Amino acid sequence: MTASPVRLVAEDAPDQPRPTTELTELYRGFEQELLVPLWTEIGDLMPAHPQSKAAPHLWRWDSLLPLARRAGELVPVGRGGERRAIALANPSLGGRPFASPTLWAAIQYLLPGEDAPEHRHTQHAFRFVVEGEGVWTVVGRDPVAMRRGDFLPQAGWNWHAHHNATSEPMAWIDGLDIPFQYATEAQFFEFGRDEVSEAERITPERSRSERLWGHPGLRPVGAEPSPAGTPLLAYRWEHTDRALTEQLELEAEGFAGVVEPGHAAVQFSHPGTGGDVLPTLRTQMHRVRRGAETAPRREVGSSVYQVFDGSGTVTIDGHTWTVGRGDLFVVPSWQSLSIRSEAGHTDSDSGALDLFRFSDAPVFEALHADRVQVEGISR
Amino acid sequence: MTASPVRLVAEDAPDQPRPTTELTELYRGFEQELLVPLWTEIGDLMPAHPQSKAAPHLWRWDSLLPLARRAGELVPVGRGGERRAIALANPSLGGRPFASPTLWAAIQYLLPGEDAPEHRHTQHAFRFVVEGEGVWTVVGRDPVAMRRGDFLPQAGWNWHAHHNATSEPMAWIDGLDIPFQYATEAQFFEFGRDEVSEAERITPERSRSERLWGHPGLRPVGAEPSPAGTPLLAYRWEHTDRALTEQLELEAEGFAGVVEPGHAAVQFSHPGTGGDVLPTLRTQMHRVRRGAETAPRREVGSSVYQVFDGSGTVTIDGHTWTVGRGDLFVVPSWQSLSIRSEAGHTDSDSGALDLFRFSDAPVFEALHADRVQVEGISR
Amino acid sequence: MTASPVRLVAEDAPDQPRPTTELTELYRGFEQELLVPLWTEIGDLMPAHPQSKAAPHLWRWDSLLPLARRAGELVPVGRGGERRAIALANPSLGGRPFASPTLWAAIQYLLPGEDAPEHRHTQHAFRFVVEGEGVWTVVGRDPVAMRRGDFLPQAGWNWHAHHNATSEPMAWIDGLDIPFQYATEAQFFEFGRDEVSEAERITPERSRSERLWGHPGLRPVGAEPSPAGTPLLAYRWEHTDRALTEQLELEAEGFAGVVEPGHAAVQFSHPGTGGDVLPTLRTQMHRVRRGAETAPRREVGSSVYQVFDGSGTVTIDGHTWTVGRGDLFVVPSWQSLSIRSEAGHTDSDSGALDLFRFSDAPVFEALHADRVQVEGISR
Amino acid sequence: MTASPVRLVAEDAPDQPRPTTELTELYRGFEQELLVPLWTEIGDLMPAHPQSKAAPHLWRWDSLLPLARRAGELVPVGRGGERRAIALANPSLGGRPFASPTLWAAIQYLLPGEDAPEHRHTQHAFRFVVEGEGVWTVVGRDPVAMRRGDFLPQAGWNWHAHHNATSEPMAWIDGLDIPFQYATEAQFFEFGRDEVSEAERITPERSRSERLWGHPGLRPVGAEPSPAGTPLLAYRWEHTDRALTEQLELEAEGFAGVVEPGHAAVQFSHPGTGGDVLPTLRTQMHRVRRGAETAPRREVGSSVYQVFDGSGTVTIDGHTWTVGRGDLFVVPSWQSLSIRSEAGHTDSDSGALDLFRFSDAPVFEALHADRVQVEGISR
Repeated sequence: MTASPVRLVAEDAPDQPRPTTELTELYRGFEQELLVPLWTEIGDLMPAHPQSKAAPHLWRWDSLLPLARRAGELVPVGRGGERRAIALANPSLGGRPFASPTLWAAIQYLLPGEDAPEHRHTQHAFRFVVEGEGVWTVVGRDPVAMRRGDFLPQAGWNWHAHHNATSEPMAWIDGLDIPFQYATEAQFFEFGRDEVSEAERITPERSRSERLWGHPGLRPVGAEPSPAGTPLLAYRWEHTDRALTEQLELEAEGFAGVVEPGHAAVQFSHPGTGGDVLPTLRTQMHRVRRGAETAPRREVGSSVYQVFDGSGTVTIDGHTWTVGRGDLFVVPSWQSLSIRSEAGHTDSDSGALDLFRFSDAPVFEALHADRVQVEGISR
Repeated sequence: MTASPVRLVAEDAPDQPRPTTELTELYRGFEQELLVPLWTEIGDLMPAHPQSKAAPHLWRWDSLLPLARRAGELVPVGRGGERRAIALANPSLGGRPFASPTLWAAIQYLLPGEDAPEHRHTQHAFRFVVEGEGVWTVVGRDPVAMRRGDFLPQAGWNWHAHHNATSEPMAWIDGLDIPFQYATEAQFFEFGRDEVSEAERITPERSRSERLWGHPGLRPVGAEPSPAGTPLLAYRWEHTDRALTEQLELEAEGFAGVVEPGHAAVQFSHPGTGGDVLPTLRTQMHRVRRGAETAPRREVGSSVYQVFDGSGTVTIDGHTWTVGRGDLFVVPSWQSLSIRSEAGHTDSDSGALDLFRFSDAPVFEALHADRVQVEGISR
Repeated sequence: MTASPVRLVAEDAPDQPRPTTELTELYRGFEQELLVPLWTEIGDLMPAHPQSKAAPHLWRWDSLLPLARRAGELVPVGRGGERRAIALANPSLGGRPFASPTLWAAIQYLLPGEDAPEHRHTQHAFRFVVEGEGVWTVVGRDPVAMRRGDFLPQAGWNWHAHHNATSEPMAWIDGLDIPFQYATEAQFFEFGRDEVSEAERITPERSRSERLWGHPGLRPVGAEPSPAGTPLLAYRWEHTDRALTEQLELEAEGFAGVVEPGHAAVQFSHPGTGGDVLPTLRTQMHRVRRGAETAPRREVGSSVYQVFDGSGTVTIDGHTWTVGRGDLFVVPSWQSLSIRSEAGHTDSDSGALDLFRFSDAPVFEALHADRVQVEGISR
Repeated sequence: MTASPVRLVAEDAPDQPRPTTELTELYRGFEQELLVPLWTEIGDLMPAHPQSKAAPHLWRWDSLLPLARRAGELVPVGRGGERRAIALANPSLGGRPFASPTLWAAIQYLLPGEDAPEHRHTQHAFRFVVEGEGVWTVVGRDPVAMRRGDFLPQAGWNWHAHHNATSEPMAWIDGLDIPFQYATEAQFFEFGRDEVSEAERITPERSRSERLWGHPGLRPVGAEPSPAGTPLLAYRWEHTDRALTEQLELEAEGFAGVVEPGHAAVQFSHPGTGGDVLPTLRTQMHRVRRGAETAPRREVGSSVYQVFDGSGTVTIDGHTWTVGRGDLFVVPSWQSLSIRSEAGHTDSDSGALDLFRFSDAPVFEALHADRVQVEGISR
């Protein structure tokens, strides 16, 4: 997957014609005319199944957070750099800030009293809070609180800024489709106002978007949302937690609802369409009951997970890691993932392992390219 | 619009050919061969705009409820009759139990300890509770509580029964698309079990459907709902009330959200699609602030409203009625409706007029036949 | 199904409460308050499966055509009556000009040199030509020729007129959703110009719509059609005939394509969506090979067929008719239909039985209410 | 865009914090933990508008064809290499065989009597024939002829092979979404039979797919196509040519239909959905009247064009090339394109410039990311 500016034809690929002077001359002709034959490349380009350029990898929260704090001391936030965000760089993607070929994940850090200036971009984004509180994201002039467990989607092309209204620094996770839009070249970006106005420095418990759209099964008759992104700007932990709890209770009572035994999951959804909150990103919260293990599962497309609570082990295509709160890991396309919830050093109330997940699944579903394989059973 | 078995051609229609012996003979030939010319019928069949066969009409709750109670004394509930339901019969629809040409609305009444036997049908249905509580609707063996302000949709072809688990009788409103399916002839019906099993006589606060689907913006990953009807079986008053309250608060703060000044409204929606809860029925709750008045509005299709709280006046194509809690009225297709909230004899807390509404709008939207006219402005 | 203005409760319905003085008084109370109980009506309103109010019936072309000709002599065409169209009146629908509860079918007749004035309406319409030629339908100022075998859809709210440019009278069939829109009350109508302009009296072989949209699998990049009706205004017999011929040839060669053995069929489709040409009407041409017989089939919704060529027998819920060119028959909802192609007095080239069909199927599909049963197998 | 395995942070990016020992240490910490800050990368990742990694470029048919012929002499076709296809390698994409970041375009060459073995893959593909004939593509055992001007789409996961049934070699163009699926990692591939069976060596004028699906506005009732790719396997030049001719005739008569003055275009479409023939590729044929020039136009996403006939000049973001038959050029995302038809050394009958085009537009439309700018007017 190296991409040198000058590239010789891979004559050592399998099933190649016997190298001769004439063939070498032909290949030189190809290069001169900016041509590359299929037969030397087909193994790389058209594999039997996805062979991800990315590697599975785990980033420890205990390593990320101190670096983010140190960046808080050394790096100002302002116009130009825009955000004090530090991205996961998959070890197999050439040092680029890409968690996977399509997904961006970063830790963002904001000091007491700091603002991150307003801008907008076509890249779809979200925030997820694994700990702390005190920052408000102002979206289209609507201030949205951020607290542990909250999920804040941010559809492309909405103006947004952040400000820390408290006396404590705060860190959280940003997810975007930056690598996907980078690969497909669909990005637009605009600077907004340099500072959040006084009127937007209010710190309401609930955003206007939640007051309008955050009621179960109810939509405002007077508002027509865009299908391109959810109008609901915050999904609160109390609701997510309750939904997961109730799925496991239903299972215990003998009723349907969980994904598989001991494994509850909810998907954040657009209340106007029922679909994904963002056109390119699927976002979910999973809970694995203590002692339970999920069936190994492969999917077309990649995912990033962050452990929200509890501890356990994750196995990705044969590699196993123990994980705890805040740890992030990436699952490349078509690599199998299994998750096991275990009693660990972190003593959580529920004893369950809670994981936030985001993936590029909506891209593949929109293009009829989705495939899933669970324990050898294709769907 | 009378439909006599033998029907003479309307020779007094406008723009008709001069009656002659030959013409009379021709018309007799038509009748013999079961033919009817367009030119005598076109005014009735193809009007400049919808001329409803139905009339606007108001039914008083104070008149309905005593009759329902009396039916409770005289008419048993059981297999065959199926339900102790008494339907609104539009005065212009020939005595048929049709509130409008497409909509059925009835008051249903169940005594303490009574069961209404299980059945299923393709007609889509819902319950709405204007007062009282104590009945559970059992849908696919999931018992769903019914209390004041609750809305319970019931998509076609789901098994369902009712039982009154308390020592008080209870009345509520049923809405169905019976006339629409009667006109288009798409009805199927099956009897289920004669009695609700002991296991289903439990009376949980929250149904399994709510535990799985009743969380704002969250859908269970392990369940795939049918697009043909909502998987959420109850929409509770506390959520509806809060959503309406918050819309009016947003308006007072200067933000968007209400339908028009002083007029908040929410639509009950399918959490898996964002669309209507039922394929043929749109259901909404409206709140008109005391003193406010809605702009006169015409729509293709008919609606039935029930006053949930407060009092005021409604004006339908020039007819004005004062209305109070429980009163039901029908708005025929393309007749203009305006609603005014007023301080009345009923002293409601909020001072607002709350109205439940259902209509056949999804039919017209699915067929690209919807039209709305507000104060002379077509959309 | 009679609809008298005053209607007594049907006390002779099955499973009724025992008649007593009190019950009679209760029922009188219902009538006074414009109420009707469900328990006396449920058998009619909620049958086990659709029990059509319509009857299966056959109209002979040999009877229709002379009456249309006679109307040509006696009844002028012009503003007010609008069209010299004579509609099929189902014998069980009370003398109304309705072939079925949702479908209108009429023979229309235009003399040499005559115009039918321009108008538009929300009712969706089409023309189908069983014999003759010489009339042009002018749709939005685009003149469209009509010849034997041609199908001309006419989506609602398009301006249209007809003119006979030849020295021969011409008859054809009109199909519309008049009864459906009459029942649901969604109709709008406007008069257009009284006469077709000279510029529109041209008689091109191909309409502009065909030049833009009539190429297989090709859509014009510069035009965006409405999803609410096909932009292609004529489907020519040469294409329909060839498609049917090729299906039967593929069958003879052992390949897939026919509906069932000996039974080819094509559906007229919207080139911009692939769906039905009209939101409420499905239109198809069927060809049954001589000697073949279709499997008995029930569908939710009704159909009207016209024999285009050949002869045979049709069996509808036990009634059998022999049919030949031009004959029209109606199949009510959920009644079973089987068609047999036979050598008859009409000696057709192909020896096959060709039938044009239209139905209300898109309504039921849009509302998730479609059902089909073939030889006892439900789909 | 270079992707070295080890990558230092770009400290020379604009708006960076002042380099200090502490900052250098922080950045070293980032690298150790596989992290990359946003603030050094944002200019590259989130530009104001798409800044394509690709360059506009032109490949001359006169250079491609001799190299393909020479490959025919030196390189066998068979299992492993699969196809004698030679791909355009954009000069700015590091020597990879990618015409743009999402599109693959190659010349394929098959000698008399040769077979290209059967396989299938999730990559969507098509063939377009600029000259010659004699090869049949066998798709799911259905042999499809290839002749000048024909377009043959090939939805992913269909078995397909080629065989040259004549005594002449043949070249054509393959288009695929290989780079897109490579970037997003969704590829599956399977080998089929090594040789085409005798039964498939027939060389019919029309494929079975055309006999079933190639009739304008008609779909077979007995077949249900996948929405993921067109069931029509060939779009013949005679239809494409006629459609373009008629658009320009309509323009000359004063009617709508062309894209802009002097510019006709048709889009190859899925007859079952009206949408694109392939989920990820849009394919069109354009005709620019001699002397006409298209308005400069930018689009999100990239395109490859091949001149089919005529000659002219193309201008891409300020670069101008004269072009003639067979020449291929690529237009990167958001670069403006204008095409001018000119009388050239190639004397074409029509005097028009005909261009085949394919692009990745369906990807962006499916994800709500499409944008177009024509002469400064955004849509």
